Amino acid sequence: MIFEIHSTDPGSFARAGKLQTDHGEILTPIFMPVGTAGTVKGVHQRELLDDIEAQIILGNTYHLYLRPGLDILRKAGGLHKFNGWSKPILTDSGGYQVFSLKEIRKITEEGVYFNSHIDGSKHLFTPEYVMDIQRVIGGDIIMAFDECPPYPCDYKYAEKSMHLTHRWLKRCVERIQTTEPLYGHHQSLFPIVQGSVFPDLRVQSAEYIASQEQDGNAIGGLSVGEPAEEMYKMIEVVNAILPKDKPRYLMGVGTPENILEGIALGIDMFDCVMPTRNARNGMLFTTEGIINIRNKKWEDDFTPIDPGLGGYVSTFYSKAYLKHLMKCQELLGAQIASIHNLRFYLWLVGEARKHILAGDYASWKDQAVKKLMTRL
Amino acid sequence: MIFEIHSTDPGSFARAGKLQTDHGEILTPIFMPVGTAGTVKGVHQRELLDDIEAQIILGNTYHLYLRPGLDILRKAGGLHKFNGWSKPILTDSGGYQVFSLKEIRKITEEGVYFNSHIDGSKHLFTPEYVMDIQRVIGGDIIMAFDECPPYPCDYKYAEKSMHLTHRWLKRCVERIQTTEPLYGHHQSLFPIVQGSVFPDLRVQSAEYIASQEQDGNAIGGLSVGEPAEEMYKMIEVVNAILPKDKPRYLMGVGTPENILEGIALGIDMFDCVMPTRNARNGMLFTTEGIINIRNKKWEDDFTPIDPGLGGYVSTFYSKAYLKHLMKCQELLGAQIASIHNLRFYLWLVGEARKHILAGDYASWKDQAVKKLMTRL
Ligand SMILES: [Zn+2]
Ligand SMILES: [Zn+2]
Repeated sequence: MIFEIHSTDPGSFARAGKLQTDHGEILTPIFMPVGTAGTVKGVHQRELLDDIEAQIILGNTYHLYLRPGLDILRKAGGLHKFNGWSKPILTDSGGYQVFSLKEIRKITEEGVYFNSHIDGSKHLFTPEYVMDIQRVIGGDIIMAFDECPPYPCDYKYAEKSMHLTHRWLKRCVERIQTTEPLYGHHQSLFPIVQGSVFPDLRVQSAEYIASQEQDGNAIGGLSVGEPAEEMYKMIEVVNAILPKDKPRYLMGVGTPENILEGIALGIDMFDCVMPTRNARNGMLFTTEGIINIRNKKWEDDFTPIDPGLGGYVSTFYSKAYLKHLMKCQELLGAQIASIHNLRFYLWLVGEARKHILAGDYASWKDQAVKKLMTRL
Repeated sequence: MIFEIHSTDPGSFARAGKLQTDHGEILTPIFMPVGTAGTVKGVHQRELLDDIEAQIILGNTYHLYLRPGLDILRKAGGLHKFNGWSKPILTDSGGYQVFSLKEIRKITEEGVYFNSHIDGSKHLFTPEYVMDIQRVIGGDIIMAFDECPPYPCDYKYAEKSMHLTHRWLKRCVERIQTTEPLYGHHQSLFPIVQGSVFPDLRVQSAEYIASQEQDGNAIGGLSVGEPAEEMYKMIEVVNAILPKDKPRYLMGVGTPENILEGIALGIDMFDCVMPTRNARNGMLFTTEGIINIRNKKWEDDFTPIDPGLGGYVSTFYSKAYLKHLMKCQELLGAQIASIHNLRFYLWLVGEARKHILAGDYASWKDQAVKKLMTRL
């Protein structure tokens, strides 16, 4: 994997770059739509490509491991072949999902025991096994198996958890170094910085993660309930340490504002379920601000959803029609809103990139946040 | 509305024709996808046009009347403008839905009192009001308000119900003759033949309906639980009376076999929720036969859904991937299956048309039914 930086913003830490993978290049900063079980909910693969203009999508190891399972994925020749998405894929480590199970998991040095949320069956994820699973899925970028502590979390727990994550990382790295990709394309392992909201832990963790000299680095355990200011502070602390010449991925973040602030702090990659989950609830991000399409005020607004964004769904369908579909809980409502919101997120990072290249990112960002976060 | 017949099959009553409306022409025989609440479930308007190649879609008066309601539809300029479908639309009369409510409706000479299935609110559909509603929706073809008796139904009830339908038809015709379309395009009223499974009642009803000399005629009250042979018998009896130079629409039918047999008996237009409803349950109609995609045998079948059918979803996605999506109850599964099945139904009537034009419909039909109804 090759990462090159094209431009750095003079007024912030924002960078515009390019990530080269065996499945094609990714212009950064980038947002990655979440394709939980090998599908971005409600979105066809060609829509992801042509309408949303996604450059890389995420797959969830936990979900793919349970369904369709490793046997099917191996026979298919990996996720790219299975779902027909031939651009880059990143897979998470399953850690985040497994830790969300709460009642039905147990953490040990060896790994995490958990029961499937589908049928209650028992499973054990170890760092080694999670690497093997990600080899089978075949993502271009694969994530280390980490513990993501809850928020709030006391210092002792956060410290203990961080060291466990570091020990697990060593095992992940070793497994990856002693195994080969299954489908002929390179897989880059990204380690994950933890440390909750404690600056000294974040520093320690960032130093340890940087020392692994992997192709890229991730920041985990943020956007889990802490105030945005605390999140930004942690990103600042960590990014001062993570190498500048490697891509930095902020996991599970966030609102358009979070993304623009993250970019200003030197983040290159983002993923979040917000655009699709909010879409299904009728919350739309538009180039003019935020719309709750379930609001009565849109029922006779026959103007397009967002002419400024362009593209089929945002210019073809009206707000009134979308409101009607959402009210009737019609599938097409979720489909339209999901494509629209994802297109918005890709537009957002594309605009950010333009302004980094133009050298006016910092000032543009403040105006953009104000406009885009307005509730219409 | 102009209907012309291009060819008649020598071995059956099948006809190939063309129906000209103000929203474009329809080649017959034709299948009309059902767009209940102004949307074909899970299908974008451009997919309806480009992938499914629908020529006309159905809207349900009952559903559209309740949501979005007449006020919104009038402000939008009718359903075509509201949902962005600019080809022909046919609306049913709402009768079928209202009679399905059973517990919450009351039939009188005046019309039908019913309670909304959504909020329990009280409503009265009279023949006149249903015409007014269909003026507001603005379909190119609108249906008379009829009573659709249940099956089985005793002779006395069927006879009484048929005469009520005839009296209501008189009121529908008068209302349409004394009102104007609202949006500048012509609306054709189709009366409906009833009479349950009693040949003499079907004859009486067909004679009465034919005497109205409307642009087209429909056969209702079939495919409601009676054996297929009885349905075919009724179609035969009715089609011997309905004028040959007007399109004949068999309402709510049916399986691929029903459709091919209906065509052989001289039917030109069909609608049915089967392709989309079955799609959501994992039942696919393919050019090789019927597939239950939830069956384990497809889980590692990485071949396209139906290469013989062509088109994006049927050739891009594999059976294994679709099976996975259905198992996970992912929206995309319903979307893919719905587009596929609707494309199949449009392909089916297109093939039928070709063979009518070639003059070998009757013999082709028997082979096609055998193949297409095979369970794979
Ligand atoms: Zn450590
Ligand atoms: Zn009569």
